[in-house]
Amino acid sequence: MKIAILGGTGKEGQGLALRWAQGGTEVLIGSRERSKAERIASELNARLGSTSAPALRGFDNREAAAQAEIVVSTLPHQGHRQILESLRQELAGKILMVATVVWPPGSTDRPSAAEEVRDVLGEDVRVVAAFQTVSALTLQAIDREMEEDVLVCGDDAEACQQAVDSMRPAGLRGVKSGKLKHARIVEAITALMLQINKRYGVKSAGIHITGLS
Amino acid sequence: MKIAILGGTGKEGQGLALRWAQGGTEVLIGSRERSKAERIASELNARLGSTSAPALRGFDNREAAAQAEIVVSTLPHQGHRQILESLRQELAGKILMVATVVWPPGSTDRPSAAEEVRDVLGEDVRVVAAFQTVSALTLQAIDREMEEDVLVCGDDAEACQQAVDSMRPAGLRGVKSGKLKHARIVEAITALMLQINKRYGVKSAGIHITGLS
Repeated sequence: MKIAILGGTGKEGQGLALRWAQGGTEVLIGSRERSKAERIASELNARLGSTSAPALRGFDNREAAAQAEIVVSTLPHQGHRQILESLRQELAGKILMVATVVWPPGSTDRPSAAEEVRDVLGEDVRVVAAFQTVSALTLQAIDREMEEDVLVCGDDAEACQQAVDSMRPAGLRGVKSGKLKHARIVEAITALMLQINKRYGVKSAGIHITGLS
Repeated sequence: MKIAILGGTGKEGQGLALRWAQGGTEVLIGSRERSKAERIASELNARLGSTSAPALRGFDNREAAAQAEIVVSTLPHQGHRQILESLRQELAGKILMVATVVWPPGSTDRPSAAEEVRDVLGEDVRVVAAFQTVSALTLQAIDREMEEDVLVCGDDAEACQQAVDSMRPAGLRGVKSGKLKHARIVEAITALMLQINKRYGVKSAGIHITGLS
């Protein structure tokens, strides 16, 4: 399985790239500038050492999306729709996990970033919301197992299951948490996480779902 | 410490009563009908057996609120404001933890039940939101330790801390999660828990916060 991470040079994207690569998944980091993606890929490869079988590679967003079977967008909210719309052909038929959060978070009174993407791309792309509440710092701490879960929302139940399955090699537990519209609540949770971080003087509060088995 | 649980004959109230009583806290169950509260108290005492030092007792809501140092409201949303307003004198100066959720949950676009109570009672009562996401079933399973946390929101930081402290004997970890307005997000999370329960065929998904220490 090849996974592309669009906007993958940011903190969240780098964290996801590290986790997947550590688990043996082939990761394609996408960026607006290919040279930046190549530089970050080489930095991350250095952090992973020689143990990771397939090395991370850097591309521009279009090349990364075209080559991958599953695509993750960690693009910032500003401009994410335009970029993804321009990749409609490369994304067609694929699962697109949207990690983007509409800023500032805390309201369910507007579409989530994942719904925005669905509204732009329509039926062509299998849009799923994921990773909104997951701390980039925790992802990047690859010497520690992930305690926090990934809340996964989407209207396509099969795509949600495939998204959950795709996270396993990365040591991430995905939890199916509702339809795509429920991503509004997941985005709002990030505002709660910021409040918790502030009150406890930490930087990476996360969510683990209890009672599933 | 004496804790009153208003509307304490419901599932959530009974679960909280059991947990606190098990931990040695004196619990006063309040209900509209005193006889019902007495009946439930005696049922719960039977479940707890002879180990719990101070037995649970049943009262009407007013008597329970008057005698307690800390009050929890698990009243249903319908009518909760009127009942609490009628107890203004009994509640004055006390911490009131509001567990009520505005139905149906899922929107941050309206005041939370805790904010409604604050708006009615004003500065007289130290309103804190708590227990919204906590499963009644999990609370009632007193042979098992609580894995899930209690998200606590409020504008009075000292009251939030006291609320958190008061939960410890019950084996509950409170997590300070923001101002009272953030209870809107906590209420919305209950909608997410329902989605998760449905998808996993369980009845008591809950939230544990990771990364606090």
